[in-house]
Amino acid sequence: MPSPITLTAIGTVHSEIREPLDEVFGGLTARIELDPARFKPDSLKGLGEFSHVEVFFYFHQLDDSHIVYTTRHPRNRPDWPEVGIFAQRARARPSRIGSTVCRLVSVEGLAVTVEDLDAIDGTPVLDIKPWMSVMGPRGPVREPAWARELMTTYWRPAK
Amino acid sequence: MPSPITLTAIGTVHSEIREPLDEVFGGLTARIELDPARFKPDSLKGLGEFSHVEVFFYFHQLDDSHIVYTTRHPRNRPDWPEVGIFAQRARARPSRIGSTVCRLVSVEGLAVTVEDLDAIDGTPVLDIKPWMSVMGPRGPVREPAWARELMTTYWRPAK
Repeated sequence: MPSPITLTAIGTVHSEIREPLDEVFGGLTARIELDPARFKPDSLKGLGEFSHVEVFFYFHQLDDSHIVYTTRHPRNRPDWPEVGIFAQRARARPSRIGSTVCRLVSVEGLAVTVEDLDAIDGTPVLDIKPWMSVMGPRGPVREPAWARELMTTYWRPAK
Repeated sequence: MPSPITLTAIGTVHSEIREPLDEVFGGLTARIELDPARFKPDSLKGLGEFSHVEVFFYFHQLDDSHIVYTTRHPRNRPDWPEVGIFAQRARARPSRIGSTVCRLVSVEGLAVTVEDLDAIDGTPVLDIKPWMSVMGPRGPVREPAWARELMTTYWRPAK
């Protein structure tokens, strides 16, 4: 049995989106507030020199009973193939970890404002890392048709 | 006070690298074995259609006393600016979460073989997500000179 791993959120998402929906986050601005009990503005020093950050967060509203360990159709669309939970980026995953590359809008005090963060208001943030260009995929990218199709509209501005 | 978040590793890294070193992972092949008590090969169904995966892992050997909450010089190099822990990708971070985009080599049973996984042997794996091209940064990428310089050799093959 693997031992449990205990993490503490570094901060919280503040967003106008309060319900877990799909395709409402494109172009949306959200604010991450670091926990003032553990961090100071220094923790973010120099972050403003990056155009993008990777935000790691925890799907806190996901009920145990909804977690998928085997397969599902992405977005429950029967016209897309039934694939394993680790072959898709659905929320209903065993670790409940979400990760998104966001455009950095501003860093002020303990607040990091970003664009395209697909996490709802109140979501615990686990980590923020700067995006460095060589951290993207090395070599040509291949992905199945369903994934290309799903992601075509993912970042479409909701308004 | 934020409530603690408890996670269970989904699997473990098997690698020839047993010590936390820098720049020894370029071109290196490692294997992730999913926990057979919780997963079946189905959990990985369809993953092989992707060229790359994002692997999330836990720096389990990092001692509490080494965690940086404020600033440090990346790689402890005084010629690079002292920046906040969230403005760098150093291991010594509060959440102990690492994340790397790896080339997918093969998927067999509960084993996922990848290239460029910068995690040592025995590292608990928290999640695996397929890389989808639109998950990369939208818009032009900007990063400071120190980050470009540090990353120039990051994936250089060690052998």
